[in-house]
Amino acid sequence: MNNNISIPKGCRDFKPEQVYKRDYIFSTLKQIFTLYGFAPIETPSMEQLSTLLGKYGEEGDKLLFKILDSGDFTKNISDADWQEKNYSKLSLKICEKGLRYDLTVPFARFVAMHRNDITFPFKRYQIQPVWRADRPQKGRYREFYQCDVDIIGNNSLMNEIELLMIINDVFKTLQLNYKTIINNRKTLQGLADECQLNEHSTTFFTILDKLDKIGLEQVIKELNQLPISNQKLEQLSNFIALLNNEKNNKNKIDIAKNFIRNDIGNKGLNELEYLINNTNTLHLFKNLEFNILLARGLTYYTGTILEVKSTEVSMGSLCGGGRYDNLTGIFGMPDVSGVGMSFGADRIYDVMESLTRFPTNILQPIDVFLANISQGYEQYIINISTELRKNNIKVDLFPDPNVKLKKQLTIANQKNISWVIIAGEEEIKKEMYLIKNMKTGEQFLLKFNEIIKKIKTV
Amino acid sequence: MNNNISIPKGCRDFKPEQVYKRDYIFSTLKQIFTLYGFAPIETPSMEQLSTLLGKYGEEGDKLLFKILDSGDFTKNISDADWQEKNYSKLSLKICEKGLRYDLTVPFARFVAMHRNDITFPFKRYQIQPVWRADRPQKGRYREFYQCDVDIIGNNSLMNEIELLMIINDVFKTLQLNYKTIINNRKTLQGLADECQLNEHSTTFFTILDKLDKIGLEQVIKELNQLPISNQKLEQLSNFIALLNNEKNNKNKIDIAKNFIRNDIGNKGLNELEYLINNTNTLHLFKNLEFNILLARGLTYYTGTILEVKSTEVSMGSLCGGGRYDNLTGIFGMPDVSGVGMSFGADRIYDVMESLTRFPTNILQPIDVFLANISQGYEQYIINISTELRKNNIKVDLFPDPNVKLKKQLTIANQKNISWVIIAGEEEIKKEMYLIKNMKTGEQFLLKFNEIIKKIKTV
Repeated sequence: MNNNISIPKGCRDFKPEQVYKRDYIFSTLKQIFTLYGFAPIETPSMEQLSTLLGKYGEEGDKLLFKILDSGDFTKNISDADWQEKNYSKLSLKICEKGLRYDLTVPFARFVAMHRNDITFPFKRYQIQPVWRADRPQKGRYREFYQCDVDIIGNNSLMNEIELLMIINDVFKTLQLNYKTIINNRKTLQGLADECQLNEHSTTFFTILDKLDKIGLEQVIKELNQLPISNQKLEQLSNFIALLNNEKNNKNKIDIAKNFIRNDIGNKGLNELEYLINNTNTLHLFKNLEFNILLARGLTYYTGTILEVKSTEVSMGSLCGGGRYDNLTGIFGMPDVSGVGMSFGADRIYDVMESLTRFPTNILQPIDVFLANISQGYEQYIINISTELRKNNIKVDLFPDPNVKLKKQLTIANQKNISWVIIAGEEEIKKEMYLIKNMKTGEQFLLKFNEIIKKIKTV
Repeated sequence: MNNNISIPKGCRDFKPEQVYKRDYIFSTLKQIFTLYGFAPIETPSMEQLSTLLGKYGEEGDKLLFKILDSGDFTKNISDADWQEKNYSKLSLKICEKGLRYDLTVPFARFVAMHRNDITFPFKRYQIQPVWRADRPQKGRYREFYQCDVDIIGNNSLMNEIELLMIINDVFKTLQLNYKTIINNRKTLQGLADECQLNEHSTTFFTILDKLDKIGLEQVIKELNQLPISNQKLEQLSNFIALLNNEKNNKNKIDIAKNFIRNDIGNKGLNELEYLINNTNTLHLFKNLEFNILLARGLTYYTGTILEVKSTEVSMGSLCGGGRYDNLTGIFGMPDVSGVGMSFGADRIYDVMESLTRFPTNILQPIDVFLANISQGYEQYIINISTELRKNNIKVDLFPDPNVKLKKQLTIANQKNISWVIIAGEEEIKKEMYLIKNMKTGEQFLLKFNEIIKKIKTV
């Protein structure tokens, strides 16, 4: 008998209160996604490793959970393979499948596989767990939920506007203060070209992306390692400082247009300007912030890049996404433009929890605790519970008349249930019921119909 | 570029229509579980292998999906280990975790781990996927959902009655015809004792359980391999035949009481009689059938055993369960009685699909397709969509005014959306909207408020 029971690190059990809160987030997202015309899909937890490998960079490949092949997995390993002890090479000989690392690659695989059954533009949402063998820490789990919403097969910027509206609806409903940071990959590319760093663009973007963390001085120091002239670096530094001091998005665009004078950069800035103009007049998007340095890790973005952050709690991004022009290309279906984003339900949960922003009414879905104190009156008790349930009243019928009433009331209290109905022998004979409000302590002796009215009107 | 994309065998993608149907089953179950006072929990997809191994028999251990340890998994394997090539022994040196095989063992682990935070009797439900490396076939998948509902920490038979009522509510709501087969482990034990086969009880139960599949003659033949006297075997054979010809549950109990004359058997029969009496008078349980041969695979049942089958489609059980008196004992928490059952959502899905029993109204949650044909009127179109959504009308706004109206209408049709709203330049100027019912072909030119009325009243 083993008392040292545990669950794998980075994984979590969820008790009822936590499930209610998580479901509140999921159902809010689902409801809003549906309001915007998105339809749900689901993909398997396991994918072929060939589908997953090479899609998340070298680091990502290492973080994939691999599933050991069933049966004799040693049969594909020669003694020579074994002697080499290259574990990463070996793992591919004994594992064919891996756990989903995100929802984007499975979605691309889904679209490529089912392209003939899909009506484009395809607006889908997907709310499922993903797994990463990351080092667990605050706000980072090994099993966590992603809530993705994408429109694939259309390149109109109207899609981006709808996504920005969804962000607004979601965080307004959840009563969280937030800002949406937007940028455009083409603008970043234009900036790299302007600095003659197009051959070093990835490094360039990565350094720029760190501004918030390490400050401008350090960023400039790191940029100095790249082949950029001192004059250009000074201009760039001034440009970043100028943008940093400007709050108005339209002015920022003007500043950027002044600095970035090439086609691709200009195209990106025009797209950003379109989004800013169309959301400005909506009076919805006080929360929109153009930040030319936002890159986000994923290299597959080709247009809009966006990220949502809490303005109340310091936490990684709560939502992130962007436009990709060739996501399904890796699965043999080129030139399909899409745009989408992913809400991090676990981080949103952590933010809401730390701000105690969850509505209290979601925490107690059970209406009535039906105390059971009269042995031999099972039929009677069952009938009451059935009638209450027919009236859509959620009843926790205590199963055991051998347990003392006092103990039963304690249990009702621990379960935080508002109403207790007590049908003792006396009451049963009179066809009356004692109903007690556990919050106020009030008691009433009522007929059955009056009980239903009482519970429903409070 | 790889065109040969696939997903692991026994796994499935779900398209929107399938997700809607699956959600209909899940939400029906959730709603009824809640009506009966059950609260949800969730456990991680991965458990320590030490939690899972040895709980499902030798066959079950083989069907566990094991997760390869991250990093250098070879470090725990010596060359001698390797030379031995005992893959099942090796697997335990390179895998610490496995995927959940069912919800019962994780639930027992959960209860033992969180015993101090739980109010008993604990009524929980849990709806999550499980994974088994089984050979895929019709109705059997490698990733499938279990929907479990258990009451733990109380041994009153009222719990069983509530479970039987839940079964009734679930299948009535899903409009499926079914029967619930019940038995009791004690009765089975009493039967084994009566035949002096208590040392061979597992084999005995397994043979009896096959009656439906192989017929009485074959069962008797197999029983003949056991150390049972010819006289006893003939008595047993007559007893089974007698029960088989009797439809009335009360009469069956009487027949069984006459044959099984030992304490444990009698205890089981009294429990069954209690359930039959209390459900009979409810007039709810025309579907209840006492079958003394029902054993079900799981050896941890100690009292009631139950199973639900479709009476319309030939399919394995749609729900199964029973009482266990020592489930948490393996995790160091002995003597906790519980009773529960598991609904097989995937099988229920397959039955409903084959009988076309899904309500059609669950298949189209999008109310309106908003055609977009007027370049430069983005603001206007966005405003309409926002107003409609404020009225809780689900709108699929077509993102691209460059696509011809005819093509847009085709897309609306393919998406099976009932209403299309068209706001051309002319209509916009008049503040009127053309609204078309795609089912009837009717068209109306309406003001905004009239549109909302039109959509909501149909």
